[in-house]
Amino acid sequence: MSEAPFQKVALIGLGLIASSMFWAMKRAGMDSHVTGFARSEATRDTARRLGLCDQVCDSAEEAVKDADLVVLAVPVGAMGPVMQTIAPHLKPGCVVSEVGSVKRTVIEAVTPHLPEGVHFVPTHPMAGTEHSGPDAGFASLFDNRWCLIVPEDHTDGDAVSRVETYWTALGANTERMDAEHHDMVCAVVSHIPHLIAYTMVGVADDLGRISDNEVIKFSAAGFRDFTRIAASDPTMWRDVFLTNKDATIEILGRFTEELMALQRAIRTGDGEQLHAYFTRTRAIRRGILEAGQDTDAPDFGRAKVDR
Amino acid sequence: MSEAPFQKVALIGLGLIASSMFWAMKRAGMDSHVTGFARSEATRDTARRLGLCDQVCDSAEEAVKDADLVVLAVPVGAMGPVMQTIAPHLKPGCVVSEVGSVKRTVIEAVTPHLPEGVHFVPTHPMAGTEHSGPDAGFASLFDNRWCLIVPEDHTDGDAVSRVETYWTALGANTERMDAEHHDMVCAVVSHIPHLIAYTMVGVADDLGRISDNEVIKFSAAGFRDFTRIAASDPTMWRDVFLTNKDATIEILGRFTEELMALQRAIRTGDGEQLHAYFTRTRAIRRGILEAGQDTDAPDFGRAKVDR
Ligand SMILES: NC(=O)c1ccc[n+]([C@@H]2O[C@H](COP(=O)([O-])OP(=O)(O)OC[C@H]3O[C@@H](n4cnc5c(N)ncnc54)[C@H](OP(=O)(O)O)[C@@H]3O)[C@@H](O)[C@H]2O)c1
Ligand SMILES: NC(=O)c1ccc[n+]([C@@H]2O[C@H](COP(=O)([O-])OP(=O)(O)OC[C@H]3O[C@@H](n4cnc5c(N)ncnc54)[C@H](OP(=O)(O)O)[C@@H]3O)[C@@H](O)[C@H]2O)c1
Repeated sequence: MSEAPFQKVALIGLGLIASSMFWAMKRAGMDSHVTGFARSEATRDTARRLGLCDQVCDSAEEAVKDADLVVLAVPVGAMGPVMQTIAPHLKPGCVVSEVGSVKRTVIEAVTPHLPEGVHFVPTHPMAGTEHSGPDAGFASLFDNRWCLIVPEDHTDGDAVSRVETYWTALGANTERMDAEHHDMVCAVVSHIPHLIAYTMVGVADDLGRISDNEVIKFSAAGFRDFTRIAASDPTMWRDVFLTNKDATIEILGRFTEELMALQRAIRTGDGEQLHAYFTRTRAIRRGILEAGQDTDAPDFGRAKVDR
Repeated sequence: MSEAPFQKVALIGLGLIASSMFWAMKRAGMDSHVTGFARSEATRDTARRLGLCDQVCDSAEEAVKDADLVVLAVPVGAMGPVMQTIAPHLKPGCVVSEVGSVKRTVIEAVTPHLPEGVHFVPTHPMAGTEHSGPDAGFASLFDNRWCLIVPEDHTDGDAVSRVETYWTALGANTERMDAEHHDMVCAVVSHIPHLIAYTMVGVADDLGRISDNEVIKFSAAGFRDFTRIAASDPTMWRDVFLTNKDATIEILGRFTEELMALQRAIRTGDGEQLHAYFTRTRAIRRGILEAGQDTDAPDFGRAKVDR
């Protein structure tokens, strides 16, 4: 690809998402010059050692200088402060994007600091693993995954299109959505599943009558699927729940309601209700397989794959 | 293996577990003669077509005749009735085993029908996929998984040992446990995770404001891990919850309590509590990886593998 959608790209935050973006850009043959910055010297050193970014800078200000695209890839709660730091150093006409898991709060935190003539295009690549940090990334993370693009009504159309072109080159499919709908969809498909998984793992860890050792030994019976997502970065998830409070609490309410209904069916021995409920949920699984968003392999497809 | 622990083996029920047992026996080179029976003609026909069992019988009575080991591999709620049917046809001194996911209730349902001189050794292979039926099985299902052996105090020691030898030959590790502890451990590592997954998928399916299509498209963000286990057989799971009621309701209570505490932390903006909780749960994940009960591959290790 000779004509990269952005000639100079700055990645602020060098964790799982930013490092995967960098490797995916290289894989796509984009000739953009990529600068990077992370808060800690340790992360910057690791990035330099890995060859992550064409240039790792010691300040965010330096990294964003002359950039055509600046991507904020830090925890959701850090988006506002980071934007405030870099704002005076942005090139007029540049595009600022971010990859946070929550949108309405991030838009509210970032927008007040936006200089005149700088375009803001929030995005959310719906892909991840339970790993974090600069060495967690890999080029295929976004392949065949969705990247939600969450512009506001007044956002410059050309800036939005270029961000979409960029994500398509990284392997993702893009879809536009408004911030409120985004936050509700993500509460359902991501935030509440993570909260529940964290809770289940916490309960298991806490039960005196069953040793941690037993929980670990026998985890293949379902529990390990929960531990996987409950091993994600605590800071990222703290920020997600604190910033997507309304949708989280609404969906949690619905979840608890349904769980209580099933508990009642168990207590009263209502096998018909249980059977009907468990049958209905199979259809969604089938849909996910058909949409190519998971594999149907036995043993949950958990063969060892190479990075 | 020339000296099979049981010369004649009868599999009653020919679903995921029984078919995997058959293929694992063949892989181990066991020279046992294996008969099989399933309730429906359709399943028996499929079994014959697949070469599942050396002989597929048209009645359970016929299948168990002369068997040294009879394995009940039917839903938990069917164990008692099936035992009642076969009891008069069992060879004196034979071993009856079963692979149900719940133990106390199954033992109570089966024991009254046990003829004098027949040994009963309940087991629970802690392995599975979300698939069911005679064509779902594969020889490696039990490899490196745990098979819990749940004898009672008075159970014949030799019968227990032979069942353990048999499961070891099938690829599993065995561990003895009493029925009450088994049911509590399984509620934590398997039954409640499944119930929660079913509930989460039900909630997603039910939300008018988000289309099923969106839930499916964006499922890679965490939700798909839930749909996988929520696609398991409805009859099997109905029976599990109805028969492991006490442990289920106890663990559900603990789960709801913790979830409410986290909900409160979210509502009041207590980031410290959330961060501490999410940090604690990571250790369990590490333990599971170290115990070889899951893979740490990126993209959740979901590469396509062959059966
Ligand atoms: N992981 C996922 O599954 C996923 C998926 C989609 C979107 N997201 C979103 O993507 C963003 C990044 O996530 P990630 O998984 O890449 O995280 P990560 O691997 O933990 O990396 C986070 C990066 O942000 C930097 N950082 C943290 N706090 C900061 C602060 N207060 N100021 C400046 N920099 C800070 C970190 O620097 P140090 O290393 O120096 O601490 C690190 O380089 C988050 O907003 C997250 O919600 C994550
Ligand atoms: N799947 C797992 O993850 C897993 C793991 C460990 C233990 N288990 C336990 O293993 C047992 C079998 O599970 P599975 O996954 O192999 O189930 P499955 O694939 O659904 O097969 C069940 C078999 O039982 C037969 N059956 C069903 N109801 C019956 C009845 N009322 N009377 C006689 N036969 C009946 C079925 O016959 P038709 O096909 O003719 O209907 C079928 O052959 C269950 O007790 C389950 O709790 C399952």
